[in-house]
Amino acid sequence: MNIEERLLKGDKRACARLITMLENDDRKAIDIIKKLYNHTGNAYVIGITGPPGSGKSTLTDRLTKELRKKGKKVGIIAIDPTSPFTGGAILGDRIRMNDLSLDKDVFIRSMGTRGSLGGMSKSTWGAIKVLDICGADYIFVETVGVGQSEVDIVKTADTVLMVMVPNLGDDIQAIKAGIMEIADIFAINKSDLDGADKTQLEIEMNLDLNDKKDYRPPVVQVSASNNKGMDKLVDKLLEHKKYLEETDELIDRRKRNTKLEIIKLVEEELMNLILNKALEENLLDNLSKEIILKRLDPYSAKDKVLELIK
Amino acid sequence: MNIEERLLKGDKRACARLITMLENDDRKAIDIIKKLYNHTGNAYVIGITGPPGSGKSTLTDRLTKELRKKGKKVGIIAIDPTSPFTGGAILGDRIRMNDLSLDKDVFIRSMGTRGSLGGMSKSTWGAIKVLDICGADYIFVETVGVGQSEVDIVKTADTVLMVMVPNLGDDIQAIKAGIMEIADIFAINKSDLDGADKTQLEIEMNLDLNDKKDYRPPVVQVSASNNKGMDKLVDKLLEHKKYLEETDELIDRRKRNTKLEIIKLVEEELMNLILNKALEENLLDNLSKEIILKRLDPYSAKDKVLELIK
Repeated sequence: MNIEERLLKGDKRACARLITMLENDDRKAIDIIKKLYNHTGNAYVIGITGPPGSGKSTLTDRLTKELRKKGKKVGIIAIDPTSPFTGGAILGDRIRMNDLSLDKDVFIRSMGTRGSLGGMSKSTWGAIKVLDICGADYIFVETVGVGQSEVDIVKTADTVLMVMVPNLGDDIQAIKAGIMEIADIFAINKSDLDGADKTQLEIEMNLDLNDKKDYRPPVVQVSASNNKGMDKLVDKLLEHKKYLEETDELIDRRKRNTKLEIIKLVEEELMNLILNKALEENLLDNLSKEIILKRLDPYSAKDKVLELIK
Repeated sequence: MNIEERLLKGDKRACARLITMLENDDRKAIDIIKKLYNHTGNAYVIGITGPPGSGKSTLTDRLTKELRKKGKKVGIIAIDPTSPFTGGAILGDRIRMNDLSLDKDVFIRSMGTRGSLGGMSKSTWGAIKVLDICGADYIFVETVGVGQSEVDIVKTADTVLMVMVPNLGDDIQAIKAGIMEIADIFAINKSDLDGADKTQLEIEMNLDLNDKKDYRPPVVQVSASNNKGMDKLVDKLLEHKKYLEETDELIDRRKRNTKLEIIKLVEEELMNLILNKALEENLLDNLSKEIILKRLDPYSAKDKVLELIK
């Protein structure tokens, strides 16, 4: 069997290999995805974000188990911040030491953001397509932290699940402001801790202020590590999916995300082209030296680089 | 007095106006910075990052007060995540309700990341230059959260200060992995809480593993809200500054950051050019429709957009 056939059969090893090829910018990976593109579009993508310490990984694992009970195939992509120096994923391949990794219908992968050109890398989009081709019914894309790459997650997801915890301290205002408009569902994890009701109230009050849409994000108290409330959370996820499908908003979201993906692909190709050319001529080194010596400013330096492609 | 003269005199209102012009992509702002570029390079830039709830704002305020005691002029730029939908800063202009804002030698500004093209926007770099021209001795650039835009902060900073707190939960591993290599100084804030010593030990152990450089990042326990240890923290900041200056690493860092800034400027100009052209022809809309219908794949769509500039 060639790799295309193995992918269509949901072979996890073929799937892993193709994602690695994507990460290595192997053109053959793109060719394979292009060829199999009409097999995409079946997977439903759920973005999971939330502050450090909110237990996103455990929650994702539990959601996966709930979906497995329903016979669904699940993919998990965990996004790591990328080192600004090495370009590699900072956490490396976080291996989840649990029974999920033994399940042939669960695929788990950790991926770096490939820093400099934005939070979501083209490999993330590519990996989603690979899992889609491999027959995943649901794909979780899980972030680390709360910041730009976490806000960016909305650009790949059909549904965005925000994981909160009680007692987030003063910065809860900042977090809430940051995610209120991107979250479709709120899960308050570790809800056995004091303060869960207060956190829920705060979120609900914020939702009251933003209540301009037909759909109001539900707030669900759960405890992933105790497996409490996970069935209800899955119900809410499926309800949101149904809502999007029935109102055609799913098509709109996917169109928006597809546009963003095209822009990203254009950006990466173009910048690679220019940077390679600038590198050849040692241009960036020379320009930055001139700038440090204040014989040039960065804006004029930019114009000089742009002349390269004219 | 024209705006150039007012900037050179450190007029806060002129400074604020120029930054607003930068945010609005007003070409005149760039022309002014270009004209005054030889007045830059005196400010020392300190990036402040750390997880939500670590008290970064309070700590920045306290550091500012310490530096004011030494007669230094200080600028503070607080980075907000940007809304993926409106493009505006999510937190709006967080106004610090304290005595600092009345000090004529302290300038405070909140700025959005302008999402899609990466964590640090060209306005952030521009604003640093404006504050530099206005005579700031020190500029703090403060992030929200821990993620890609927080890792990106290193790209504007001379010194990176990482703020930690005791009891960060399981995700401390992720945070540590994410910032170990970018932090020059660690502050454990709220060190009156239990667990500060344990957090310090964990950081020190990680530093032991990474101990390949001449300079080892110090770990300082502080309590910003009680004004405890802030003088020591300032000492460590000044020591790191001195170290960078004496070893010429400061020049290297600034060269590296300048290169990244040029790349960012090139990227933004080029993408604006292409996107405007694509917008005119309704190209992205049409392509994404085709992709949703599976008559096209995103990679072929990218090629079609790139043809626009050929």
